[in-house]
Amino acid sequence: MKLRAEDLGEFGLIDRIISVLGGPKPPYGMGDDCALVELGNEGIAVTTDMIAESTDVPPGMKPWEIGWYAVAINISDLASKGAKPLAFFSSIAIPPETPVSLIEGIYHGMKDCCSTYDCYVAGGDTSRGGELMISGTAIGRVNASDFIQRSGAMVGDVIALTGELGLPALGLEILFGKSEYKCDRAVRALLIPRPRVREGVYLAEKHLCTASMDTSDGLASSLHQLARASGTGMEIDLDLLPIAPEVMEHGGEDLERLALYTGGEFELLLTMKEENFEEARKTIDMKSIGTVTDSGVRMRKSGRITELRDTGYSHF
Amino acid sequence: MKLRAEDLGEFGLIDRIISVLGGPKPPYGMGDDCALVELGNEGIAVTTDMIAESTDVPPGMKPWEIGWYAVAINISDLASKGAKPLAFFSSIAIPPETPVSLIEGIYHGMKDCCSTYDCYVAGGDTSRGGELMISGTAIGRVNASDFIQRSGAMVGDVIALTGELGLPALGLEILFGKSEYKCDRAVRALLIPRPRVREGVYLAEKHLCTASMDTSDGLASSLHQLARASGTGMEIDLDLLPIAPEVMEHGGEDLERLALYTGGEFELLLTMKEENFEEARKTIDMKSIGTVTDSGVRMRKSGRITELRDTGYSHF
Repeated sequence: MKLRAEDLGEFGLIDRIISVLGGPKPPYGMGDDCALVELGNEGIAVTTDMIAESTDVPPGMKPWEIGWYAVAINISDLASKGAKPLAFFSSIAIPPETPVSLIEGIYHGMKDCCSTYDCYVAGGDTSRGGELMISGTAIGRVNASDFIQRSGAMVGDVIALTGELGLPALGLEILFGKSEYKCDRAVRALLIPRPRVREGVYLAEKHLCTASMDTSDGLASSLHQLARASGTGMEIDLDLLPIAPEVMEHGGEDLERLALYTGGEFELLLTMKEENFEEARKTIDMKSIGTVTDSGVRMRKSGRITELRDTGYSHF
Repeated sequence: MKLRAEDLGEFGLIDRIISVLGGPKPPYGMGDDCALVELGNEGIAVTTDMIAESTDVPPGMKPWEIGWYAVAINISDLASKGAKPLAFFSSIAIPPETPVSLIEGIYHGMKDCCSTYDCYVAGGDTSRGGELMISGTAIGRVNASDFIQRSGAMVGDVIALTGELGLPALGLEILFGKSEYKCDRAVRALLIPRPRVREGVYLAEKHLCTASMDTSDGLASSLHQLARASGTGMEIDLDLLPIAPEVMEHGGEDLERLALYTGGEFELLLTMKEENFEEARKTIDMKSIGTVTDSGVRMRKSGRITELRDTGYSHF
């Protein structure tokens, strides 16, 4: 029987694609949040991310929010490498019966998200498609020497995380009717993510991090990805996780799933030397959640160590 | 009743989107083949183009050809502005049951097209989708002062066209079984387009053109787009059109439709001063097909003038 996309899973498929393409190209690229393209003395970070109505748009999401989201997920990838947003490009596939007002709403959201992060929609493409899909590409500016890769974590580094954990996951439960709890803050955290541009650019310019990525696939999956890219292990401590109070209160048995294994979060997961962490926390709202180790991705929980599963958001 | 995407057509929809976004942003952007992003002294041309299996993939198109095509249509947009390809990014939406070998074939095609034009696949995104869709973004390098816009045509300029007309359209007829004629050259012209990078870069560096775009929407539609962008008219002469011999021979009653009103052609449509045309034709294979006028988009045909319809390839 023929091997199908769903048999491999998203990361398996990406590995196959990278192998066809012959591995990463200098200076950086494949397998990181952005590629770095060098142009004379200038560095440009480029990232592309696609959303499909059937898989990425929860019930009740408004057109404006879809547009905001399509931009924000790309800008978050720039932020995680320390790049300042310059311009955004959208390709949109539209079923012919789609109301024009819906499309206008999407572009209003794109425009507003771009303005918020000092960039603009510079171009795009429209195409007919069987379902609504938006593919966004964001371009940012970063010096090549400032670009923060995923692969630089060193044993002994502090693992740090910006913001809070679990709110978007709780928002998803609410929108899908799996939770009776009403929590606007959770729903807004899911639908209107706020990429950490100021934080990423500051950390990159000051050379305070050894590695960085965003947590869009969920914290556990992100820890695994950072560990693989850096050839290290990661150990976090449950008691140190900045789980949002609403999630602590209403997460119940699902607390770990919400905080660790659900995507849609756009915080920065960082590794840095202890002294740099102390320096950076003066300017940036972030917490130490653990330490880079030499192998394994684990969590300390009530004094015991457990393995973190390598699962989170995956498209297949 | 609500206005739907198909009621407006592709260009009507693009106008609505541009109006939401507040019009073009400096220096160039919306409504041209590429946007120009300036970075210090460097200029970057960026373009994005999406293909959907249901609308852009004719029967029998091989995975390798799909990958080649996804890259080539973007590189053609760079070429038309005079930009040298630097890097390509792909977002791909994949139905879960898609054979992995098909996806690998697509990426082989992308890689080979990139290599042919001295660039590389630098990154991308994979996503689950209801149908196979590929959104590509290409980035190229061009000095801001060399970038050839659509809007610079001047009354009296020569209208020039690279290559030949009608082969991809004939190829499409053959693949859809509308023509009994066998013609590999036509099918190949459709499935494996060869963007005019060398020509575009040469013309831009030498400042020989006043306006340029590619003919991916068909010649008639492209003439209308160039006329609108430049605020001029266009008059071409049927006898001057470089219609491919196979199309002349087998086009029959459909000759004009094949040569003028079908997309899938990736030639450069150029306007230039007479003396620059004489200079450029020493280096580049192109023909004069007419003259920029002050209004109307017309064709001289056996001594009579007819209006060219503004139709061609449109997604809605």
